Amino acid sequence: MNTNRTTTETIDQDRRQLLGTAAIGIAMAGAASFDPSPLLAAPAGDAVYQTLKVRKNSGVLFVDIAALPMNLLGPELVRDLVALIQRAEADDAIKVLVFKSADPDYFIPHVDVTRIPQYRQEAAKLTGEASIALLFRHLSASRLVTIAQIEGRVRGAGSEFVLAMDMRFATRETAIFAQPEAALGAPPGGGGMQHLARLMGRGRALEVMLGAEDFNAELAERYGWINRALPADSLDSFVRSLAHRIAAFPAAVLAQVKDRVNAIALAPVEDFRRDSDLFGEASRSPEAQSRFRAALQHGFQTRDAELNLARLLGDLSAQ
Amino acid sequence: MNTNRTTTETIDQDRRQLLGTAAIGIAMAGAASFDPSPLLAAPAGDAVYQTLKVRKNSGVLFVDIAALPMNLLGPELVRDLVALIQRAEADDAIKVLVFKSADPDYFIPHVDVTRIPQYRQEAAKLTGEASIALLFRHLSASRLVTIAQIEGRVRGAGSEFVLAMDMRFATRETAIFAQPEAALGAPPGGGGMQHLARLMGRGRALEVMLGAEDFNAELAERYGWINRALPADSLDSFVRSLAHRIAAFPAAVLAQVKDRVNAIALAPVEDFRRDSDLFGEASRSPEAQSRFRAALQHGFQTRDAELNLARLLGDLSAQ
Amino acid sequence: MNTNRTTTETIDQDRRQLLGTAAIGIAMAGAASFDPSPLLAAPAGDAVYQTLKVRKNSGVLFVDIAALPMNLLGPELVRDLVALIQRAEADDAIKVLVFKSADPDYFIPHVDVTRIPQYRQEAAKLTGEASIALLFRHLSASRLVTIAQIEGRVRGAGSEFVLAMDMRFATRETAIFAQPEAALGAPPGGGGMQHLARLMGRGRALEVMLGAEDFNAELAERYGWINRALPADSLDSFVRSLAHRIAAFPAAVLAQVKDRVNAIALAPVEDFRRDSDLFGEASRSPEAQSRFRAALQHGFQTRDAELNLARLLGDLSAQ
Repeated sequence: MNTNRTTTETIDQDRRQLLGTAAIGIAMAGAASFDPSPLLAAPAGDAVYQTLKVRKNSGVLFVDIAALPMNLLGPELVRDLVALIQRAEADDAIKVLVFKSADPDYFIPHVDVTRIPQYRQEAAKLTGEASIALLFRHLSASRLVTIAQIEGRVRGAGSEFVLAMDMRFATRETAIFAQPEAALGAPPGGGGMQHLARLMGRGRALEVMLGAEDFNAELAERYGWINRALPADSLDSFVRSLAHRIAAFPAAVLAQVKDRVNAIALAPVEDFRRDSDLFGEASRSPEAQSRFRAALQHGFQTRDAELNLARLLGDLSAQ
Repeated sequence: MNTNRTTTETIDQDRRQLLGTAAIGIAMAGAASFDPSPLLAAPAGDAVYQTLKVRKNSGVLFVDIAALPMNLLGPELVRDLVALIQRAEADDAIKVLVFKSADPDYFIPHVDVTRIPQYRQEAAKLTGEASIALLFRHLSASRLVTIAQIEGRVRGAGSEFVLAMDMRFATRETAIFAQPEAALGAPPGGGGMQHLARLMGRGRALEVMLGAEDFNAELAERYGWINRALPADSLDSFVRSLAHRIAAFPAAVLAQVKDRVNAIALAPVEDFRRDSDLFGEASRSPEAQSRFRAALQHGFQTRDAELNLARLLGDLSAQ
Repeated sequence: MNTNRTTTETIDQDRRQLLGTAAIGIAMAGAASFDPSPLLAAPAGDAVYQTLKVRKNSGVLFVDIAALPMNLLGPELVRDLVALIQRAEADDAIKVLVFKSADPDYFIPHVDVTRIPQYRQEAAKLTGEASIALLFRHLSASRLVTIAQIEGRVRGAGSEFVLAMDMRFATRETAIFAQPEAALGAPPGGGGMQHLARLMGRGRALEVMLGAEDFNAELAERYGWINRALPADSLDSFVRSLAHRIAAFPAAVLAQVKDRVNAIALAPVEDFRRDSDLFGEASRSPEAQSRFRAALQHGFQTRDAELNLARLLGDLSAQ
């Protein structure tokens, strides 16, 4: 397996492969046996990643997601996240991680549906289980304080990634949120059901996940999906200031507060595992495979078509 | 028992009966032994109901509540709801139920306090237990996706009915919400305590249920009582569009998402049963019977007086 | 121990003592053995307190907090709260307690960090345990309905006191909220972690408690910290009217609704106890003692400096 496949061309190969076959869902044996140990020698702030740009500044590690062409969550990004988390957790000088996107239109649009077994296998490098739900939950339970600074689209596993963060701030003008899995024939499997039901209550969580619609930042704030929607021109300084403020407080207390709040508001591992399994099973079903193929034929996983994914999915279902 | 008693006159007879006696609360033996099986032959979309008007359109069943004179939740309406639910659940072509009211002032104002044993007995036809709390919870747990489209007043069991729905959208201009039971000497018994404590948190739930005040749609949205308050002239098209969108997604996934969210955010059956019992006991107490009588003497259960029920109840208590 | 030490001068002595020694944290043996029984003879509405002004009016006891010079939660205030709660619970004529502040700038700013063992010991007079978390939880579980009418600053244990109330209403213009403990090296120990995680969800609760920032009333309302922010000129009449309305409803139903909501949304005693212990241990640690000293040197626990406590704590940590 080519571990450098990040170009549009390579992803298009995968899309063509899925369009031609329904049997990709269980090809897990072919996953890369990537060895991250050489990279671990470098401190988190100095490491070089394929899909992440990092900068360390007084206790805060700022991470830009830059997984060309549109920040799909695929094996490369998951591999880099695993390596980043391992290094940051091992570095006592780091207390806070800030995740943002190098792409103003896409924070993380969702997983690469053509490579589900591959990115799952990368997640197993950290947690021992082939599931991004458990990778994300690892971050929620980490001593590291995590902040999502959101521009552009966070949908599906992108939404679930930021839901696993400790705090979420988004640009009022450009951030867009969705949990569109139902439209494709699968339940959200990366922790979205666990987080959304707790953050926004039963009614709003069901609207979000059964309706598979796009939500703007203002509505996402009203629903509790994010902490706050802020004007684009103040978001960066707000997050930077908050991150440095927190990083100046004692690490032991930060971890203690996280532990106590997690004991109340973070779902147990087995619930994340169950959701992940349900997504895995559903995504291999004929119904989902057929919906994936139809979506890909209509531009799913391309920048232009996903600018308005909600409409694309609605049109597909109505056919 | 006359199963056609829906006129103002008949209800007034009940009110006069309650005004003259305190012994109606346990007259459950007199409840009708209505046999719904002949009606079950008709598909849900074609059936004729006494208090509901239904229209089926591509996977969505639109239900108008029309229980003259003011949509009180009494035995007729409960009987029809039971029959509707049974038919809809048996019809695989139906995925979504949309409930609205034929009466712009009253969605469901509350239960008919003069016929508590009777409507409870009707509920038992579906669940085996004489409790609307369990009837409503049945809907929450159903594979059917339910949407409340709210104009006018939802108070007491009316609020609890929409709280049992999967989503709630209301007109910003005209919808009014209350959980007024405490003013009448009983706790909310149809699931309101379970849903409100989870949706809006301890402080706001206690304000709503201990204060027994009316809330407009804007405040209900801020408190999480409803998903959203929308302008009256866009509510219908918004809900219709959302309902059809959902109905185009795979039924198995809709059920799966509901199950997983319910496992987190829907209270167990025994808590609904307990609340229902508490309401039943309290409603038969001398204190509640006396408050029911006083309220009825001041126009409770009439259209005009209930336009401002919050004030009526406040005046009563202050006497 | 001098039980009348409420002047600025005496508190300044305590501050000087803490500035000169790190060994005050475990001086619990010296706590006063105050006997409240003589005061219990007087009904709650007529009693005279050192730090509270009370007025009883048709079922409602209005309580003004007046603990000079700035309403710090110290042994005198806790002693008075214990006596007030005991009397009010013993007086069937009282159904509702309304707490407000005699000081427009400070409702309760936080505990007196120079007298932690002393105020904890006073709390034990009610609950048998030296913990204000358990004292506050006692109020939450009480049959008494409690309402916080908030002007000025509620931070730390002040925030936790109002979170223990059944409802919270604040002036839109002047109320300020914070849970600043992490900046001082300790987790919130008076129930803040339990309440905030449930009221506002994981992300916002972590932002509040890890960021230790000030929040205005409008944002506190959006986050669910309070029921509502109201204009200063209408707050008093709103709360008074609501309190009297509730006091006219049957006591048994008020208690029943509280019990059922508490069963859902109030954390168990052991979780409050655990948080209280964590705060107690952390507050005696060298890290926290050092941060307390530095804060006191910069004006902590003085009126002027705490007008902008968030900045003071940020400056301290950045040094």
